[in-house]
Amino acid sequence: MNSEEASKPVRIGLLGRGTVGAAFADLLAERAGAVEAATGRRPEVSGVLTRSEGEFAAILENSEVVVELMGGTDPAREHVLAALRAGRPVVTANKQLLAQHGDELFAAAREAGVQLRFEAAVAAVIPIVRTIQESFGVTEIAKVFGIVNGTTNFILSEMAATGAGYEQTLARAQQLGYAEADPTEDVNGADAAAKMAILARLAFHSPVTLSEVSCQGIEEIQPDDLAYAKELGLSLKLLGAAERRDGGISVRVFPCFLYAGHPLAPIEGPFNAVMVEAPAITEVTMSGPGAGGLQTASAVLGDVVSILAGEAPVHETRVELPIVSDVTSSFYLHLEVADRPGVLAQIATVLGDHEISVKSVVQRGSGEEARLVMVVHECLESRFAAAVEAIGKLGDVRSAPRFIHVIEEEF
Amino acid sequence: MNSEEASKPVRIGLLGRGTVGAAFADLLAERAGAVEAATGRRPEVSGVLTRSEGEFAAILENSEVVVELMGGTDPAREHVLAALRAGRPVVTANKQLLAQHGDELFAAAREAGVQLRFEAAVAAVIPIVRTIQESFGVTEIAKVFGIVNGTTNFILSEMAATGAGYEQTLARAQQLGYAEADPTEDVNGADAAAKMAILARLAFHSPVTLSEVSCQGIEEIQPDDLAYAKELGLSLKLLGAAERRDGGISVRVFPCFLYAGHPLAPIEGPFNAVMVEAPAITEVTMSGPGAGGLQTASAVLGDVVSILAGEAPVHETRVELPIVSDVTSSFYLHLEVADRPGVLAQIATVLGDHEISVKSVVQRGSGEEARLVMVVHECLESRFAAAVEAIGKLGDVRSAPRFIHVIEEEF
Repeated sequence: MNSEEASKPVRIGLLGRGTVGAAFADLLAERAGAVEAATGRRPEVSGVLTRSEGEFAAILENSEVVVELMGGTDPAREHVLAALRAGRPVVTANKQLLAQHGDELFAAAREAGVQLRFEAAVAAVIPIVRTIQESFGVTEIAKVFGIVNGTTNFILSEMAATGAGYEQTLARAQQLGYAEADPTEDVNGADAAAKMAILARLAFHSPVTLSEVSCQGIEEIQPDDLAYAKELGLSLKLLGAAERRDGGISVRVFPCFLYAGHPLAPIEGPFNAVMVEAPAITEVTMSGPGAGGLQTASAVLGDVVSILAGEAPVHETRVELPIVSDVTSSFYLHLEVADRPGVLAQIATVLGDHEISVKSVVQRGSGEEARLVMVVHECLESRFAAAVEAIGKLGDVRSAPRFIHVIEEEF
Repeated sequence: MNSEEASKPVRIGLLGRGTVGAAFADLLAERAGAVEAATGRRPEVSGVLTRSEGEFAAILENSEVVVELMGGTDPAREHVLAALRAGRPVVTANKQLLAQHGDELFAAAREAGVQLRFEAAVAAVIPIVRTIQESFGVTEIAKVFGIVNGTTNFILSEMAATGAGYEQTLARAQQLGYAEADPTEDVNGADAAAKMAILARLAFHSPVTLSEVSCQGIEEIQPDDLAYAKELGLSLKLLGAAERRDGGISVRVFPCFLYAGHPLAPIEGPFNAVMVEAPAITEVTMSGPGAGGLQTASAVLGDVVSILAGEAPVHETRVELPIVSDVTSSFYLHLEVADRPGVLAQIATVLGDHEISVKSVVQRGSGEEARLVMVVHECLESRFAAAVEAIGKLGDVRSAPRFIHVIEEEF
């Protein structure tokens, strides 16, 4: 963007206003000031195309950047091509479009000399597209694999936890909003396959398309397979894998058991996670929510900002926030105590006087070895320090108390 | 970079040739072709400054990009400032330099209108700097926290696993190369504090410097604290946390217990992991090796490529790799079998004939309910499919075998 344009708002043409489109329009309005601080230009939606409203040619004419969130390949393909050919940078979240028509779209972007960005097309707000394209753009990547569909990961997590069957668990996922009314593309692996086609293309710089991805879904999984597997220490995920093999590449989606301790084994529920392996980086794993209107819109906004910023912005402070030193925390407290009745009561009284409540206590040893080890609930550090000082002065506490912070959230 | 420069190599001035500097020089030579494919320009090291060789003014004069890997703040600060003021983009891995002199350096970069990139300064090859600056550049980040020092994470993991004391474990970390001869800055938290000052600055757009980070190391940790904590379901990490609190921010480094199930609890050994939380993204976690010459050099190279590429490159295929469909995998196999002696032997024979070896077997039920569930070691999929077909024809196998892929690696 030229600096002479800096005073005018930048006009964003928005194609589609479903869940993600509506969330993006709201987020763009909410963060317009931050976008202006970061890029020098304030964004505004200059036109919206939906099934019932708007006219594409007019929206294109009146936009500097086009954001495609309509989904499907038709007419998204024609619109994105037209926008690129008209010299408009495009941001899209459309995985099927890129997986099926990537060659044509990337060629159009190159010919026009404009950016085509699509972070939100794979794993929503997890910045895996940017990481592979930019951070690891010249890295000889050996393998990209992970959990790239939240619906199936939720279903498999639930089946393993409850022992319920596939159909019943799918119905529950639909009730909770983790599966769509028509879940076909999620459960048969087609959604994950499109994402893996995109990641494989980026990782290996080779023109991978959807039809080349071998794909198996989760519809055939039986609850007793999950039960037996548990005895073998295994948990089940729908994996996407793209890797170099025998001078070529293999790109696949398939249900797969993982041993406990595998970095993807703890990824439960609707979360996604992607690992990238290469000799020069060892392995990097990224996880987060793989769907959601706001999360997907955030990824779209990140791409829009990158287009507006051009080169990466040089860091600039925008505010001067005060440093707050007295914050809340939960704590572990270790006390060497006299082996006498009533000691715990004394200590609990001091804690209570400071309005600190105890979460758990372990009492160990006897005589000279008697110890009280406890975790207290979250409180201001200054209040905890005062309580510890008072406890240290109790006659039955034999040496200086030791304490360590604890994060209390249980995930 | 102008297109008229495209035919000439791009000259990189390298300051420092220690572990990371030497790894970077090697990696740059090895990946020069990939850099040229990605950016249109082939990089070459045009000069190296070490304590005994090179002259800074001449190296600056003869470079287009300066890479600072000398460490320390003096003379790194003067050299980086001089390079920026001379209009050279700079890449540095120097966390103390940025944490102590960030305001001055970023101001110099802005005034000169050149990039100052520093992915390698925090968590090596984990792309947390790019993610916070670019992907989440306009996101209202609530909290950034994680394990940003591999030496202390290795020591705490080892103490918990072995029950050994701090001094003994530190000595072992030094033997294995996970701790330096002088480990002071790692174990007292100063290294992590510098990284958190940088992340806080980027996340909150506020001028945080090292002196504002409260910091506690791991020297005082006792083995029995780790033992008691295990009984409470806790594992110990040296955490860095930067978060909004009470209208300001809190930036701290401190040992902290985490409950099992916390996304950072499974991060063991010399690995790093960072979480970013914001309402619009929920949470994103990134993990990987936090140190290592080659890994750090890879992060430096990623920054150099971004400078050369200018705007994010439009995806372009560089090769056409064949799709390999028959790959190796380990498998889970579920068989409904006749409840008769010799059935397992028959099946094992078929597997042996196909050169497939069995890793584990579970036998369940009796009569009509008899099941054999096994995991076989890695083999070609085609070979496994042939074995399953043969097993399906055995008279004592009562219904079609079911199988699911397994990743055999145990981490």
